[in-house]
Amino acid sequence: MENSVMRKQAIVKYDIGEFLEVEDVVAIEAPLTIVINGEEFATMLCTPSHLEELVVGFLAAEGLIRTYKEIQKITIDEDKGFAYVKLEKVSLSTSDATTKRVVGSCCGKSRQFYFQSDVKTAKTVVKCSSISVEQCIKLMRKMQEGSDDYQRTGCLHNAALCTKDDIVISRSDIGRHNALDKIYGYCLMNGVGVRDKVIVFSGRISSEVLLKVSKIGIGILLSKSAPTTLAIELAEDLGITAVGFIRGQRLNVYSRSDRIICDKELKGD
Amino acid sequence: MENSVMRKQAIVKYDIGEFLEVEDVVAIEAPLTIVINGEEFATMLCTPSHLEELVVGFLAAEGLIRTYKEIQKITIDEDKGFAYVKLEKVSLSTSDATTKRVVGSCCGKSRQFYFQSDVKTAKTVVKCSSISVEQCIKLMRKMQEGSDDYQRTGCLHNAALCTKDDIVISRSDIGRHNALDKIYGYCLMNGVGVRDKVIVFSGRISSEVLLKVSKIGIGILLSKSAPTTLAIELAEDLGITAVGFIRGQRLNVYSRSDRIICDKELKGD
Repeated sequence: MENSVMRKQAIVKYDIGEFLEVEDVVAIEAPLTIVINGEEFATMLCTPSHLEELVVGFLAAEGLIRTYKEIQKITIDEDKGFAYVKLEKVSLSTSDATTKRVVGSCCGKSRQFYFQSDVKTAKTVVKCSSISVEQCIKLMRKMQEGSDDYQRTGCLHNAALCTKDDIVISRSDIGRHNALDKIYGYCLMNGVGVRDKVIVFSGRISSEVLLKVSKIGIGILLSKSAPTTLAIELAEDLGITAVGFIRGQRLNVYSRSDRIICDKELKGD
Repeated sequence: MENSVMRKQAIVKYDIGEFLEVEDVVAIEAPLTIVINGEEFATMLCTPSHLEELVVGFLAAEGLIRTYKEIQKITIDEDKGFAYVKLEKVSLSTSDATTKRVVGSCCGKSRQFYFQSDVKTAKTVVKCSSISVEQCIKLMRKMQEGSDDYQRTGCLHNAALCTKDDIVISRSDIGRHNALDKIYGYCLMNGVGVRDKVIVFSGRISSEVLLKVSKIGIGILLSKSAPTTLAIELAEDLGITAVGFIRGQRLNVYSRSDRIICDKELKGD
């Protein structure tokens, strides 16, 4: 139970009218500083598991690499929380642009990008097959049953890379973005094709989450939670099917609903 | 119901075996770019309400101002999502340091700061009175009853500035940090003393949330959710009482539990 995801912690619990000193399980949060070619690039706070995937996915999402091969060397010092990355060519000027806002000339009609780096890395999903309501509900249930870290700590987000029928891998992190970056890193490191894949996610669908999914190149995002207005606009623009509030036998489709098939239709009722 | 927090949205709902086109309510997410003395400083994604409070709180949390008076002028263009701020003296070099990691010489014994700006802005809470379990539970219930935005959109975080017995103000945002920045901004703009105040919060207690509370200068944080290990360490270091999982008649105290009083003790049982 003591691992890189959670650890025991002495706490004071108040229950049935009195205080008790008990041992509880708390999600580990740790810093990871990414150093590129000797220069500090970013520090993120994360769940210290699958760190190489996290770094690879983060660098790709930030537009610093397109393929895993572009990384010449990557060394992770888990104890100190450092990742040393060697890239052949690095345009760290890219990073200066990362947080600069892009204001489209044609507000409300052009794509709703807000950061220059996103313009470069977000992809419009063109080819993507459909999925049935039953499959959506089943995948969400599988992800939730499969990882009890959230249940134990109440503090982790889960993201799973799936085919239509099953989970390929599942990753958890205290940060929603990190969980998705780990999935992205896994795909790049293992040359996983994403066209036929789906992402199942425990968190809310913000614009940043939606963009991350588009960067990975996946066309269907299934979430247990709610989306924002901006995420829905981006989903329409980028051709992503965003499904939220998958709970019990219900779900809401917020964009590109043509890809979600009612099971009755499948059975020819 | 159409306001700056949420808006109506046409969605496709699957329920009881069929698709229905219905109108739902979705939380608004919008960009806000802060321009300081003509130079772009940061773009945040937020719920576009109480924007001046958000900007003031954010600038204080980033260490750019200490008091509201240091802002010579602030103009908000809500439609375009820009905040123009005029500061007399600005050390934007500060901002370069914001994301640089600080590695203490004495790992695990010194304070667990990870960003240079936090070293400057986080305060150790020295004076802070205590609160009873009953008051904690009542404040959480009041905050949740008072704001139904979360209930309606499933996408907002709430933070409330409270005395021991009542809510002073409550703020919501799609971003946890933003909700706290709005509280911070409110305090600075209205000269609110914080020594006798408590923050009630809907979200998880990450290290960043804990640091934000310490920057505001408040010694008791009451949350509905779970903390991380790093947040608990920081809470111990900074003298903050972190209470989590306030649900029904239960709660967990993670740090400085001496400030949480059992109601039996109060009554002299």
